[in-house]
Amino acid sequence: MNATENNTAQVISSEALLAHYQGHRNLTRRTIEAFPEKEFFSHSIGGMRTFAEMVMELLGIAGPGMQEIVSGKTAPLNEHVDHGNSKAKILELWDVATEQINVLWPQIPTARFQENITLFGMYKGTVISSIFYFIDNEIHHRGQGFVYLRSLGVEPPAFYER
Amino acid sequence: MNATENNTAQVISSEALLAHYQGHRNLTRRTIEAFPEKEFFSHSIGGMRTFAEMVMELLGIAGPGMQEIVSGKTAPLNEHVDHGNSKAKILELWDVATEQINVLWPQIPTARFQENITLFGMYKGTVISSIFYFIDNEIHHRGQGFVYLRSLGVEPPAFYER
Repeated sequence: MNATENNTAQVISSEALLAHYQGHRNLTRRTIEAFPEKEFFSHSIGGMRTFAEMVMELLGIAGPGMQEIVSGKTAPLNEHVDHGNSKAKILELWDVATEQINVLWPQIPTARFQENITLFGMYKGTVISSIFYFIDNEIHHRGQGFVYLRSLGVEPPAFYER
Repeated sequence: MNATENNTAQVISSEALLAHYQGHRNLTRRTIEAFPEKEFFSHSIGGMRTFAEMVMELLGIAGPGMQEIVSGKTAPLNEHVDHGNSKAKILELWDVATEQINVLWPQIPTARFQENITLFGMYKGTVISSIFYFIDNEIHHRGQGFVYLRSLGVEPPAFYER
């Protein structure tokens, strides 16, 4: 390895982080699919939100968050979109966000990941800390969805398959 | 920004990723603390493992995994350590692993994150994909621990506090 290559060595490249994120989003999509239609919108444990409500939070964050990172135009977080209690509609919104992220992501130059931002006009951090929040928050709630599925007697998808 | 700085721009630096990981470990530690002693070792939903068993998996992965990444010496995954059904003992093991990770982490040169490894003699990936697995798997199981806590009427720590 020469000095130039050494200078550009990355802990993780932008492309690899996008693939990692989309792998997680694919697993979350299969988790949504695994839910029985009715229980997706009604099942809850310990007074927590339904998995549908958690997924609406994820949808409110991912696409709009990436849009804001790329455009610099801020908007309040919106966790409520009309879905008519239809899993198919939510999966459709999921796929739109997946494509939106794929289009927006390459528009972030590597140097911008350390830039300070205030996401949704509220959450101070850097571009990378915000993106980690998107990913981690999705993993967190999907883990909760796995417990909901198990409590319904449904086998969740394999965690390590993306 | 001059050309040299531009060359070394990182999506995330090694130091920042360690801080991110330890922030998550701190939140998991507070999640363990939030459990009533008895239910930590006995409570379960839908036939899943107890939170103590999940934490033993996390302990089997984190310290030994980092040790293997740095030393190159492989050993089988061990998820069972004698803890005498004591939360205090598990928190002690947690703190030992936290310190071990802090010592080992700076021994990974940035260029090594893309190196191919077979962790615990079984799991093929790169150093960075393995470390992401450690972090993501911890977030996943901690999210499940949050549901266990809620089902016991206990308020979990705030997800965004690290």
